Amino acid sequence: MAQLVEIDDAADPRLADYRDLRDVELRKHLEATHGLFLAEGEKVVRRAVEAGHTPRSFLMAPRWLDGLADVLERSEAPCYVVSEALAEQVTGFHVHRGALASLERRPLPSLDEVLAGARSVLVLEDLVDHTNVGAILRSGAALGFDAVLLAPRCADPLYRRAIKVAMGAVFSLPWTRLPDWYDALVDLGERGFTTVALTLAEDAVPIEEAVRGLDKVALVLGSEGHGLSARWEQSAAKRAIIPMAAGIDSLNVAAATAVACYVTARR
Amino acid sequence: MAQLVEIDDAADPRLADYRDLRDVELRKHLEATHGLFLAEGEKVVRRAVEAGHTPRSFLMAPRWLDGLADVLERSEAPCYVVSEALAEQVTGFHVHRGALASLERRPLPSLDEVLAGARSVLVLEDLVDHTNVGAILRSGAALGFDAVLLAPRCADPLYRRAIKVAMGAVFSLPWTRLPDWYDALVDLGERGFTTVALTLAEDAVPIEEAVRGLDKVALVLGSEGHGLSARWEQSAAKRAIIPMAAGIDSLNVAAATAVACYVTARR
Repeated sequence: MAQLVEIDDAADPRLADYRDLRDVELRKHLEATHGLFLAEGEKVVRRAVEAGHTPRSFLMAPRWLDGLADVLERSEAPCYVVSEALAEQVTGFHVHRGALASLERRPLPSLDEVLAGARSVLVLEDLVDHTNVGAILRSGAALGFDAVLLAPRCADPLYRRAIKVAMGAVFSLPWTRLPDWYDALVDLGERGFTTVALTLAEDAVPIEEAVRGLDKVALVLGSEGHGLSARWEQSAAKRAIIPMAAGIDSLNVAAATAVACYVTARR
Repeated sequence: MAQLVEIDDAADPRLADYRDLRDVELRKHLEATHGLFLAEGEKVVRRAVEAGHTPRSFLMAPRWLDGLADVLERSEAPCYVVSEALAEQVTGFHVHRGALASLERRPLPSLDEVLAGARSVLVLEDLVDHTNVGAILRSGAALGFDAVLLAPRCADPLYRRAIKVAMGAVFSLPWTRLPDWYDALVDLGERGFTTVALTLAEDAVPIEEAVRGLDKVALVLGSEGHGLSARWEQSAAKRAIIPMAAGIDSLNVAAATAVACYVTARR
């Protein structure tokens, strides 16, 4: 049973995990250093715990305690009980979704584990926007993809905003970081995946045509600004495009991914 | 030629249009009262002006003047030249995209004008998130839709965040507000559109099947939280679903719209 600890001082060092949640750079540093991540709201906290992440602590106002009673019952981590005003003061925003929890990250699974049995996987190069990464995880899970692989510089799926947008998919869909950027697609090819890069390259064919009849597919997506690196674009087995209206050459990467996942799932 | 006016006092009343751009409620009130909207960044400002919106004023730091020289050349509105620090002080955020402009809204076109010649239209009920509205406009434009109709309570496409996410589609894709909520879909039916509501309703059929062979289609989307109202769900001619993985019952509305637009465009 989590021990309830009332705190009324925003400077209390036990609240360190919850400081300045809107300061992206500070949070990246703090979360990496301490190997933690933040979950926000009753549903997300519950999913994170059920996915096997050990809570370091909980932070909530008294009226949020009941909703997570079962989770607190089974945890040994302290639960800091604070006023909503204090929660806002510490985190830097109005915590309207209720409970927060700080949880331990776990070692990322190996590529072998994540790819075992997978037939459709998403491969994200250097997406910088946490909302996009979260939305892509959600779409991948909903549209029948089996795993997500992230290039070393891709944004963190366990960042608070990404978790929120992913609606729990970050805990249900297997994902990991690619150990190597340069030969990542070559390696996937050797593992039996046809790598299909979404791009505006001249030799790109419509996505339906590119994936038709393929067995194991790895759909490869590039960053928001510049798209795929030349290395990935050229080392993919196929280049595909989502046909678009004349004069318009781009969809948001999350929208493009949803369309490509839908089409690929029906190959 | 726009007159350049240097301002070094954040309290100068001429900067009123640019105050507190992150305060959503304040902005809604201010923009509605004065019939204005804000455009941010050289590209968006240029597109807004080219789409026929009259500038009330511009706000920029000296180093952004060159990029918009042609637009300023053709405008009679004042251009307030301020330091970047002052711009940040007035707007409440670091204006990293450069120039801002305050422009006049125009009377919304009639339903007849927007629907003239249209074969594929999107109809949005009460979407509250400006990012979603912007993303949907962008996807609709890219995937070949002809117009967008908004229920009376749907979020504003001319809100700064929506414009930014739409990447200009708000100025290129015809859109308007529906004059009547209750009978909106009945009215579209009488105008020859088959209304297809995206929903998780029991009698929903896969979207590909729902739109196959249809001529004029109106794709109907509900709000982020609760989906469509019962009235709209029931008054649509067809109910359609995007088939999803077992155990997962929803896509983000912007992702779902992208998939539905793609499928509908290929009917």
